[in-house]
Amino acid sequence: MPETTTYKLTLAYNGTNYAGFARQKESTVRTVQEELESALATALRLGAPPLTVCAGRTDAGVHALGQVISFDLAVLSLDERGRAQLVRSLNALTPLDIVVRDLQVAPTGFSARFDAIAREYRYRIAATPEPPLFSAPFAWHVPQALDRTAMQEAAAALIGEHDFRSFCVAASATEDKNTVRTIQTLDFLEEAPFGEPLLILRCIGNAFLHSMVRVITGTLVEVGLGKRRPADISAIIAAKDRSAAGQTAPACGLTLYKVDY
Amino acid sequence: MPETTTYKLTLAYNGTNYAGFARQKESTVRTVQEELESALATALRLGAPPLTVCAGRTDAGVHALGQVISFDLAVLSLDERGRAQLVRSLNALTPLDIVVRDLQVAPTGFSARFDAIAREYRYRIAATPEPPLFSAPFAWHVPQALDRTAMQEAAAALIGEHDFRSFCVAASATEDKNTVRTIQTLDFLEEAPFGEPLLILRCIGNAFLHSMVRVITGTLVEVGLGKRRPADISAIIAAKDRSAAGQTAPACGLTLYKVDY
Repeated sequence: MPETTTYKLTLAYNGTNYAGFARQKESTVRTVQEELESALATALRLGAPPLTVCAGRTDAGVHALGQVISFDLAVLSLDERGRAQLVRSLNALTPLDIVVRDLQVAPTGFSARFDAIAREYRYRIAATPEPPLFSAPFAWHVPQALDRTAMQEAAAALIGEHDFRSFCVAASATEDKNTVRTIQTLDFLEEAPFGEPLLILRCIGNAFLHSMVRVITGTLVEVGLGKRRPADISAIIAAKDRSAAGQTAPACGLTLYKVDY
Repeated sequence: MPETTTYKLTLAYNGTNYAGFARQKESTVRTVQEELESALATALRLGAPPLTVCAGRTDAGVHALGQVISFDLAVLSLDERGRAQLVRSLNALTPLDIVVRDLQVAPTGFSARFDAIAREYRYRIAATPEPPLFSAPFAWHVPQALDRTAMQEAAAALIGEHDFRSFCVAASATEDKNTVRTIQTLDFLEEAPFGEPLLILRCIGNAFLHSMVRVITGTLVEVGLGKRRPADISAIIAAKDRSAAGQTAPACGLTLYKVDY
């Protein structure tokens, strides 16, 4: 077995124009993974692109500021200068909406997916009567008044280990058989990028089901609008049925923010 | 002369896809003014769009967060509720990259252009090795290290009343005959929208010449890169010649931030 070096790459992207991170069977759709692997192959003059593994398979339209990718390169071990050079090459080769932020050598066999101990997603809501402008591609505009206290109370009821089947949009019947996950942090922050006030739902957990953060967000917004009560959350969890929870919030508001190892 | 009501409208736009604010003779280019006037005519069921006057005629690709527009409407005086309704209608009618932020009744004859006492522009620089992502449409990426102390010293030399002819890209020989302007504030702020560090040049003055903030920015960045010294500024001003100053910084980094009356 040839010697290999494992790399850990931190990636940011504007997901607006991508059909998600993961390569798909249909070759007609653009994916972040294909753009990255293609740039790696070109930059390193490889005959075939290296296989990359990601920490979080973001869906179509979802963004990332701290996505983590692992991949192995046969023999090739790059020093700090070589890695900085590769980062520059990748940023020159990838489209402007994909930015490589960091490249490190990882312990051999490191997996961005399986070695992750916590993933942080942030969902941005523009809870203002007028729509956001500079932040528009990265936020969900909810023009009605939101009851923040009720939303916080509902969020608190979701923290901890639960069967989150009600909050899962399963891509297929077979996947996500085990729907128990642990949410460590679920709270609200405020940001005002470019002076535009945004409400941020910060969601940290070990792992997430398909569309889980978006269904949680949609449900909490319905609580904020008075359509549901914070006390309803425990019944929604207990139902283990997607139809018990609220709407799936739009992809544009969601960002994979950080992954811890 | 019929009774008229003068309105003061505050407007934000992402200038990326516009040939500037001002209506142009060529009907093939998109301008913010045409979009706004057309939305006003539709919302108010006017036979012809009202003539609008702006505080700052932003160039192609330049953004605004606090552009101010004035216009007169014959007879029609809208109360607070009517104005809020008109704002909602305008935001529904204009493209997503134009947002009406506020609408007030102004003293009769108010001019967004002539009654302005101060205009604030902000120029955003992404002074980081890797390019910005979420902020990319609103910042100039300068990957080299910048000497902030030298830039501040050079900026200080530009404050006050000067003949800024060296910093003016005249659109035609006849315009801007008087090139004396007063800069009240020229300093640097820091922002990190979406966690992306940006250096902001804040420029407040009574009025600005064509491309003046962009030429000032380009010149200060050349000081930051060590290509010019802070002590060169007085000679650049004295030259009264565009070729004495630095490059014109790209339009994407510039935003008309606020106008005071």
